[in-house]
Amino acid sequence: MSVTAAKGFTAAGIAAGIKENGNPDLALVVNTGPRLAAAGVFTSNRVKAAPVLWSEQVLKGGLVSAVVLNSGGANACTGPQGFQDTHATAEKVAETLSLNAGEVAVASTGLIGVTLPMDKLLPGVEKAAGELSAHGGEKAAIAIKTTDSVHKTSVAARDGWTVGGMAKGAGMLAPGLATMLVVLTTDADVEAGLLDTALRDATRVTFDRVDSDGCMSTNDTVLLLASGASGVTPEHAEFADAVREVCADLGRQLIGDAEGASKDIKVEVVNAASEADAVEVGRSIARNNLLKCALHGEDPNWGRVLSAIGTTSAAFEPDRLNVAINGVWVCKNGSVGEDRDLVDMRYREIVVTADLAAGAETATIWTNDLTADYVHENSAYSS
Amino acid sequence: MSVTAAKGFTAAGIAAGIKENGNPDLALVVNTGPRLAAAGVFTSNRVKAAPVLWSEQVLKGGLVSAVVLNSGGANACTGPQGFQDTHATAEKVAETLSLNAGEVAVASTGLIGVTLPMDKLLPGVEKAAGELSAHGGEKAAIAIKTTDSVHKTSVAARDGWTVGGMAKGAGMLAPGLATMLVVLTTDADVEAGLLDTALRDATRVTFDRVDSDGCMSTNDTVLLLASGASGVTPEHAEFADAVREVCADLGRQLIGDAEGASKDIKVEVVNAASEADAVEVGRSIARNNLLKCALHGEDPNWGRVLSAIGTTSAAFEPDRLNVAINGVWVCKNGSVGEDRDLVDMRYREIVVTADLAAGAETATIWTNDLTADYVHENSAYSS
Repeated sequence: MSVTAAKGFTAAGIAAGIKENGNPDLALVVNTGPRLAAAGVFTSNRVKAAPVLWSEQVLKGGLVSAVVLNSGGANACTGPQGFQDTHATAEKVAETLSLNAGEVAVASTGLIGVTLPMDKLLPGVEKAAGELSAHGGEKAAIAIKTTDSVHKTSVAARDGWTVGGMAKGAGMLAPGLATMLVVLTTDADVEAGLLDTALRDATRVTFDRVDSDGCMSTNDTVLLLASGASGVTPEHAEFADAVREVCADLGRQLIGDAEGASKDIKVEVVNAASEADAVEVGRSIARNNLLKCALHGEDPNWGRVLSAIGTTSAAFEPDRLNVAINGVWVCKNGSVGEDRDLVDMRYREIVVTADLAAGAETATIWTNDLTADYVHENSAYSS
Repeated sequence: MSVTAAKGFTAAGIAAGIKENGNPDLALVVNTGPRLAAAGVFTSNRVKAAPVLWSEQVLKGGLVSAVVLNSGGANACTGPQGFQDTHATAEKVAETLSLNAGEVAVASTGLIGVTLPMDKLLPGVEKAAGELSAHGGEKAAIAIKTTDSVHKTSVAARDGWTVGGMAKGAGMLAPGLATMLVVLTTDADVEAGLLDTALRDATRVTFDRVDSDGCMSTNDTVLLLASGASGVTPEHAEFADAVREVCADLGRQLIGDAEGASKDIKVEVVNAASEADAVEVGRSIARNNLLKCALHGEDPNWGRVLSAIGTTSAAFEPDRLNVAINGVWVCKNGSVGEDRDLVDMRYREIVVTADLAAGAETATIWTNDLTADYVHENSAYSS
């Protein structure tokens, strides 16, 4: 279903030969209207890939007719040549589909510092255009995979309108944007400004709170396109809720497929003085390598949770902190609590709850454990 | 030589039975004067172990007669009982050596969240006191080891006076203090205020810039004790230089013995607009798990260096960044530079140089690679 679950969109996913192994590596998503509204959120990394620099400009107009995405190369840190290649890709899509290049967003993922094989990519655009279909969403989702073990799609169907989407990303998941590439589509009739509001509100509490390994990508891109093909203009709150639902579902899928991970860890911070405090503490816990190792070993090492909390500037008193792991309060009032042997950690999902006893705010950050497989996968990626 | 290299100090290291395996676990360092000046720097973690809370108070007076250190238990997150145990330890030292408990610093290292076996520790203090010797420095250094594979000592001998010291720490090395426990001694005749200045200036550019795994301890303690036994009062600059030399040497030894590491990584940031910028960028690079995996795999993956730089607020232009790995400028002007195959990464030490092209300031951060052994050692520590 993916990006073609909503009416008014066609998509395709093909093998252009960018990846040496012959796997699908080029996706095209086209908004057939009647509306062509769009919003986008991009990596906050200051080293931005060429397609991010390009697409940020395109999105300023709030109008996107097509998105072209490639795996097999990030086109990041590729200098002026990289930007020219992104521009040429957009021009090729525009020429092939009789669009304006300024309405074509581009997204790339793969290795940093390598220029794209344009002799393969440009013919690939023509091939993909020839295969555009209202049932092409799955193939598009497959074509954007890199080290993902499965493709990720999600759909929220409402009364007469739909939000759907696809995502890729398995490593380099971190805040400021979690994901690599996400394209969401809807046939709701929503103008660009409200799309932008809904998208930012959703990413703030979903992709921005997925932090697999603390590393922020140069290419993170989340786009939301509206075709208006349903003819329905939902209440904003209802629409925003559907966007958030799809983002949360895709974010959860990303954590579940993170490189080398054996545990999905939900870090819940409760009773914080502010949401910002809760997020800061959640991130600090989620990024603590020693804790991530301990949870990998199914060791409910709450001391490492406390030492992570202690590095933050959040409001709390050390001797009022409480920590639960999978519901067992192993730390009470900053000291030994319930018997750690009561904690059952056999399952993939682990919940770490940090009670700051300082207010009423809460936030949840998702992360993964740190494993030997993570080390192996990432110690030989570019060689 | 360790803490007894300088005149006016005795030390001992014994097995008190705190560690179940019978290894040495209790050290005592005594300043026999004539001066009893001291300075200390402690973890900036807000969750502080009981001995840190105690010793911070002791050091406020600038006077320390003895330091008692134990391995086999951190006495952190142990509540009021933990503080009482630290207090009782200091009282026992004071009673045994006829000192004032308010002049006895206490340091502990080991697992968080477990109370100390005082029935073993207190008799251990008496035993250690009975073995105090002007040649006891090595034994003291051995007794503070936890997962350290070797004990760490260093000496800077000057004209008529000496600075010596010992350190332990293999995991949880991070800034805001890098190390677990360090005791430095000198027979130079220096008053407490100048000791404090020299110690803070030294730790700021040594232990504070050792960041093995980004995790900050609850117990980090660095003490500098002066006996005045040499009768020499050196120029402050000369004294500060000797303290810095010993701190730098011990810091380098800590990185060289970090848990599970196979590479020692020197991150040099050059041409930064400010020293703060250089430190921020250096830390960001040193904490990037993806880069640490790549360097473990001897993969000169400069894209991960750039993406780490991009997450900082330092002054730089992305298209002016340069990165060298072991002297080969693999990234020039934010894009592909010299051939990455020229980089020789066979040796344990790796130098990553990041040129921000934004000024004239510099900073060096030391870290380690991320390995499967690190994961293994830290996934079963407390179980």
